[in-house]
Amino acid sequence: MKALVYHGPGQKSLEDKPKPSVQQPTDAVVKILKTTICGTDLHILKGDVPEVADGRILGHEGVGIVEEVGESVANFKVGDRVLISCITSCGRCDYCKRGMYSHCENGGWILGHLIDGTQAEYVRIPHADTSLYPLPEGVEEEALVMLSDILPTGFECGVLNGKVQPGDTVAVVGAGPVGLAALLTAQLYSPSELIMVDLDDNRLEVARRFGATETVNSADGRAVEKVMELTGGKGVDVAVEAVGIPATFDICQSIVAPGGCIANVGVHGKSVDLHLETLWSHNITITTRLVDTVTTPMLLKMVRAGKLQPQHLITHRFKLDEILKAYDVFANAAREKALKVILSNE
Amino acid sequence: MKALVYHGPGQKSLEDKPKPSVQQPTDAVVKILKTTICGTDLHILKGDVPEVADGRILGHEGVGIVEEVGESVANFKVGDRVLISCITSCGRCDYCKRGMYSHCENGGWILGHLIDGTQAEYVRIPHADTSLYPLPEGVEEEALVMLSDILPTGFECGVLNGKVQPGDTVAVVGAGPVGLAALLTAQLYSPSELIMVDLDDNRLEVARRFGATETVNSADGRAVEKVMELTGGKGVDVAVEAVGIPATFDICQSIVAPGGCIANVGVHGKSVDLHLETLWSHNITITTRLVDTVTTPMLLKMVRAGKLQPQHLITHRFKLDEILKAYDVFANAAREKALKVILSNE
Amino acid sequence: MKALVYHGPGQKSLEDKPKPSVQQPTDAVVKILKTTICGTDLHILKGDVPEVADGRILGHEGVGIVEEVGESVANFKVGDRVLISCITSCGRCDYCKRGMYSHCENGGWILGHLIDGTQAEYVRIPHADTSLYPLPEGVEEEALVMLSDILPTGFECGVLNGKVQPGDTVAVVGAGPVGLAALLTAQLYSPSELIMVDLDDNRLEVARRFGATETVNSADGRAVEKVMELTGGKGVDVAVEAVGIPATFDICQSIVAPGGCIANVGVHGKSVDLHLETLWSHNITITTRLVDTVTTPMLLKMVRAGKLQPQHLITHRFKLDEILKAYDVFANAAREKALKVILSNE
Amino acid sequence: MKALVYHGPGQKSLEDKPKPSVQQPTDAVVKILKTTICGTDLHILKGDVPEVADGRILGHEGVGIVEEVGESVANFKVGDRVLISCITSCGRCDYCKRGMYSHCENGGWILGHLIDGTQAEYVRIPHADTSLYPLPEGVEEEALVMLSDILPTGFECGVLNGKVQPGDTVAVVGAGPVGLAALLTAQLYSPSELIMVDLDDNRLEVARRFGATETVNSADGRAVEKVMELTGGKGVDVAVEAVGIPATFDICQSIVAPGGCIANVGVHGKSVDLHLETLWSHNITITTRLVDTVTTPMLLKMVRAGKLQPQHLITHRFKLDEILKAYDVFANAAREKALKVILSNE
Repeated sequence: MKALVYHGPGQKSLEDKPKPSVQQPTDAVVKILKTTICGTDLHILKGDVPEVADGRILGHEGVGIVEEVGESVANFKVGDRVLISCITSCGRCDYCKRGMYSHCENGGWILGHLIDGTQAEYVRIPHADTSLYPLPEGVEEEALVMLSDILPTGFECGVLNGKVQPGDTVAVVGAGPVGLAALLTAQLYSPSELIMVDLDDNRLEVARRFGATETVNSADGRAVEKVMELTGGKGVDVAVEAVGIPATFDICQSIVAPGGCIANVGVHGKSVDLHLETLWSHNITITTRLVDTVTTPMLLKMVRAGKLQPQHLITHRFKLDEILKAYDVFANAAREKALKVILSNE
Repeated sequence: MKALVYHGPGQKSLEDKPKPSVQQPTDAVVKILKTTICGTDLHILKGDVPEVADGRILGHEGVGIVEEVGESVANFKVGDRVLISCITSCGRCDYCKRGMYSHCENGGWILGHLIDGTQAEYVRIPHADTSLYPLPEGVEEEALVMLSDILPTGFECGVLNGKVQPGDTVAVVGAGPVGLAALLTAQLYSPSELIMVDLDDNRLEVARRFGATETVNSADGRAVEKVMELTGGKGVDVAVEAVGIPATFDICQSIVAPGGCIANVGVHGKSVDLHLETLWSHNITITTRLVDTVTTPMLLKMVRAGKLQPQHLITHRFKLDEILKAYDVFANAAREKALKVILSNE
Repeated sequence: MKALVYHGPGQKSLEDKPKPSVQQPTDAVVKILKTTICGTDLHILKGDVPEVADGRILGHEGVGIVEEVGESVANFKVGDRVLISCITSCGRCDYCKRGMYSHCENGGWILGHLIDGTQAEYVRIPHADTSLYPLPEGVEEEALVMLSDILPTGFECGVLNGKVQPGDTVAVVGAGPVGLAALLTAQLYSPSELIMVDLDDNRLEVARRFGATETVNSADGRAVEKVMELTGGKGVDVAVEAVGIPATFDICQSIVAPGGCIANVGVHGKSVDLHLETLWSHNITITTRLVDTVTTPMLLKMVRAGKLQPQHLITHRFKLDEILKAYDVFANAAREKALKVILSNE
Repeated sequence: MKALVYHGPGQKSLEDKPKPSVQQPTDAVVKILKTTICGTDLHILKGDVPEVADGRILGHEGVGIVEEVGESVANFKVGDRVLISCITSCGRCDYCKRGMYSHCENGGWILGHLIDGTQAEYVRIPHADTSLYPLPEGVEEEALVMLSDILPTGFECGVLNGKVQPGDTVAVVGAGPVGLAALLTAQLYSPSELIMVDLDDNRLEVARRFGATETVNSADGRAVEKVMELTGGKGVDVAVEAVGIPATFDICQSIVAPGGCIANVGVHGKSVDLHLETLWSHNITITTRLVDTVTTPMLLKMVRAGKLQPQHLITHRFKLDEILKAYDVFANAAREKALKVILSNE
């Protein structure tokens, strides 16, 4: 089968690899129908995730058809159309029982990381019963690829952790795909104001179409001042950090109102300065989270009901064997006005 | 009347001052029966709280008897025995309606800070209806002085913000009076392990008597290692920071388990390094809070029921006119083996 | 001034009454701009609320302009445009501090019940600071009259008590004004399915326009069967009872899924049969509530942001001196296709 | 092997039955060390649970040693000492993912009900990975038998559903084993008052030793009056119904304070009269629940830490082959002053 293979920092190729097969009674093998590329894949290619081995097939998102199941798999059978979660959950460790699948002692984020991933014609999924979800009828598969990672990430790490409630004023700092996913899913809790902060006017324009009530271009270094003006000097109830650098985390610290939350979504490469000398008395909450995908069943219901339209995040479409071109587009997102790209294996 | 008056950094004196009277219809004047000294008073005397004006009477804790009430005061009458909350709450601003009295737009922490305080024979209490609490019968007044500030601080900022739950493993870093208050009140939620971390063996011994299941002396720089050993390498569900310096906040960051909470109680003078490069994916929560004293009615019930014994925090007793000596003892807490001192005006 | 006065069961008249004035320092007198009639007013007129005295001015909803304030009133001044809450809250009793204003020891539902109400040119509002809300600019006053009672009732008693969450399946049994208010405000939490049950096709048609995804006419006695079909045999996550009779409470008991909630909004005149012989093991929650209006500030924000349009509940408009005609229309709601009527005093 | 076998209403016998073996790859067979008898077993013998077939081995509680495991079982191996949960959980259905194991689509309460149970020398446990728990070292096994059913039942259905909080006033109506389990575990949340209501002075005396602050003998029909006196006319924050008849549910309705909870634990055979004509406006919550045993890991931690002593519930001990005598004692609990009996197979 064809697969996108990592060969160390800066090195990737589209290769023929053996089709995977069931190894454990709890495994399933899934034929990929649609997959995509994540910002994390770019991090891996930069060498930022050293535990990824040479020869690893990348990718942790996708929808497909069950091709083979191990003998203990009870929820799925050959031919079922499924959503692949980016997080593998065993369903029986303490973390899984607490709904914290990201820290599953026998899984977690392993696809395209510690085991071969989804940017291929087939993928082996361990603990299939608790790591796959049946696709609802009548929903376009492209939309559902967004539910493998990006939508639950924006929702769980940004919206749920941020405790967005009806009437809240919310700022999302960073209008990349994950920030936009937070923006989309924040609306499930009906904030009254949704302010999007980014450097890129194109993305801010997209954010407007996705429901932002205000946008702030932070290129002039005046983001804090502008957000404070927009909120009558009060600051925001929830600040979602969706970039992963000290400067954007700093903005969040400066705009959060007393009693508010900073929900960190960004993947950080270094520490940040936490201003406890002022924040100690501000009654604030800061949260971090690797997505658990525990809300995937709910998100599937909302997409099926037509109340969430994640397909709007998709800007480019390719065939799976054009994946190198797709990587090129995705890696130059600003120039290409790219958000999420879809790769089809049909 | 006699009062302890601040005259700029390092300067305090016991002086004669005019007895306060009702200024607003919502005021009460309270004759102090017992008061105490807080670590914050020492900060003020160091000059760390520059908004405190020369001539200010210090103190924000105490119990007393109502001496005079404004015409709108409905909950209290002359002669009532009352607990004074360190936080003044107007009861009618948005923050008060949300139970966040610490940020009351017409109050907050003002006693012994922006208006004259309780280290005197009498004190004027604004918004008396929502800032005083009736003393229950049959409880010794000394114990209740601990409910003006220190017990709700340990409980709200440490225990509630830390979301301590039955069966949790909790570490309290810092065994000063506030850390010990967190230790005492954490037990209202029945953690299975309660680890106290401090530099002072005397205070750790006190912590044992107060219910700590393990103690760790951090003087050798191995606190993190020891806590990880005690928790089988898992870390703690809740880490309460009760010191207010980068080193202790660092310990909390290193010992918190995935899914856990760091509840900051300490008053910090400078920023700390937040290790998002590792914590971003650990599903943790960090909270800050200035005490709201919203749990004071509950704490009063628990003391009345004999299920909370805050009097154990009291180590020294003085008459109000010995307050300079009391300050000396309290400022040398380690040498004096002092926790809280009581000043009587009877 | 003109006022609608109750004179015992079945007896009401539009009369001249003395204009009220401030009696306590915490009172305000408000000139009514718009008011309305509530189903509760009809109950009073039937004699169902015997504590209402002969001579009482009815009405507990409205918006107006502050005409006079007592000397302790700090949040409002003469000339301010205000929303009157149907619940009077003192802000200083235990219930008010817990946000349970409905059980305020010095207020609660007293307007048009135990003291004179809003169906008049002027009304006296006790505890004005905590019982009035400033009107936001730029919102039509009619819409805001719906926030005096009906919207917080549907939201607090139905939606919040029912714990509606994104992706939930919700049924509202009863499409009168309060049921429709629950339907409107349930959408703040984005359920995936919203089923409205009623006997009246006109109201079900209105419910469709207000966001119901399915409607069930229960006139044939098959409501339970139909709801179970619509939910694939699973039942609903939340059943809101918005009628107040045993038959509709029975429907709720039969359609609630294991783990679900029955949120009672209806005013019941007699007991109901609770089927614990089956429900004891179904992990369900049943709630009751008299509206607290604790969410009024949030609802005001949502209306101001254009995200909630309660004006759609208004079907008829009258001048205040046509109030007897308005009562006639409202009392024959099905025939008149009436939801809420507005009475103007301008 | 020896087993207690049900042969229709009123009929049971101690018989030789074939030792069970693994049938599914997810099964384990456990050698019983200790088991007990539940009130539910008596219900079965009365014929109240008609789905129990002739020939069924009864019992759903116990601790034992793993004798055999299916090939997919990963958490346990032969020789492990385990606690058997009364609820079998598959870990992969929607209800299990939500922590509602009681409604597991592939399990739930099946032991000694739909499949053979634990009153035998061996038992087959389906879905072993998610239905067994490792025994902590150093805890006496007898105590842990109480964690199979009775302690999580009292805690989850009574204490958690009742939302017991520090400082609450709690009444438990019914001082049988489950009511006493609620009493013991309520203390994990530190209520200030714990009132036990029962007809039997012996059980009330036990309740005192277990931590009740007040006891009320309801034999004179004045339970409501007495509880209201004890609470200064306010009623209780939480009323736990632990009997299962209309009279005791009625007491709960009459003593619950506005804003309070009635947590039903009792197994009811018929409907009760719910007084919505008064309760509709009292802001109360009523809950029902079949135990999920989702708190078993926490309870194990508390027992291991010595902070919960469930062994005090044990009054009588027998060998497994004396089980008919044990049934006789347990069925005459009042006369025998019996709470829980232990059956040993060692």
